[in-house]
Amino acid sequence: MAVFERLTHLFSATGSSLSSTLFPENSPPPFTSFTVFLLEVSQTPFPLIDQNYPNFSPIHKTVNLDLPITDPQAETFRSCGNDVVVAGFVLFFPNYSSFLAKPGFYIEDIFVRECYRRKGFGKMLLSAVAAQAAKMGYGRVEWVVLDWNVNAIKFYEEMGAQIMQEWRVCRLTGDALQAFANINI
Amino acid sequence: MAVFERLTHLFSATGSSLSSTLFPENSPPPFTSFTVFLLEVSQTPFPLIDQNYPNFSPIHKTVNLDLPITDPQAETFRSCGNDVVVAGFVLFFPNYSSFLAKPGFYIEDIFVRECYRRKGFGKMLLSAVAAQAAKMGYGRVEWVVLDWNVNAIKFYEEMGAQIMQEWRVCRLTGDALQAFANINI
Repeated sequence: MAVFERLTHLFSATGSSLSSTLFPENSPPPFTSFTVFLLEVSQTPFPLIDQNYPNFSPIHKTVNLDLPITDPQAETFRSCGNDVVVAGFVLFFPNYSSFLAKPGFYIEDIFVRECYRRKGFGKMLLSAVAAQAAKMGYGRVEWVVLDWNVNAIKFYEEMGAQIMQEWRVCRLTGDALQAFANINI
Repeated sequence: MAVFERLTHLFSATGSSLSSTLFPENSPPPFTSFTVFLLEVSQTPFPLIDQNYPNFSPIHKTVNLDLPITDPQAETFRSCGNDVVVAGFVLFFPNYSSFLAKPGFYIEDIFVRECYRRKGFGKMLLSAVAAQAAKMGYGRVEWVVLDWNVNAIKFYEEMGAQIMQEWRVCRLTGDALQAFANINI
């Protein structure tokens, strides 16, 4: 994803830093803290999955494609079960609007691996987040897009999202954050 | 704040909807959920405040001003104690960067009432959030600004924040959110 967004210079995560910060012991439950939906695909019937998760039941969909998908990295992305491969994910967490007086969800990352694109899987991930927001009575789902990513912008507008042209994100990080935290005003 | 931002058409909060969504019973502790820092001012020595809050100790500052402040709405904004008035607030909550593999804080609102502006109080509120982020080992503090608010942009840049010119916020809300949540892909 960092490669696609031309942002590898900002990337410093490792497997263990991700798991220790996203899924620490005693972490708050999904939807009140960080949540990841994994998109898993299988070309044979899906293994039976325990539906009794306390917070979320897996969503199953059967998709008919015109052409079979060849996944050159299937081995690397193999998940539980013989034929199950991770094809993408969406990472999100609650935010809050004081104008609406309602929480919402902020989508930090949404990603579908290259060979699975243009088949509706991205829309499926977004719609799962929207459905969860609606179910919880939340007011908004928000995310950001790079202004040169015209395909993504077109896709988001077609699904009913507004692109907020007037707002700019401000970021305080690294040494500047430390310095500002230490000023004694 | 909605008036200042020319966004009253988006404002639908009430006192009770704010309190029931921000401070419900059994809500998660500050810093893992929504947090509000209140800026309270007093022209006489501050009443003694219990320093033993479990999550956060009040920060006390003494500020010497050239001119006394006249607050025409002091009665409306009176807080605990004889002479204590609410002058502003900052509302923030955790977000998460998968590039850094670290949580951060997102500032939803920062506001200082008109008669208390240009005295360093906004910087004080921002720096309290930055100090809390640094203390918790968080990687970033982020917020958004309207692109026509040049005074705010200058202020944020001077304190070391980057303005991310390439990113646009996308928002799915209201009927469009409900519709997208209900599509069966």
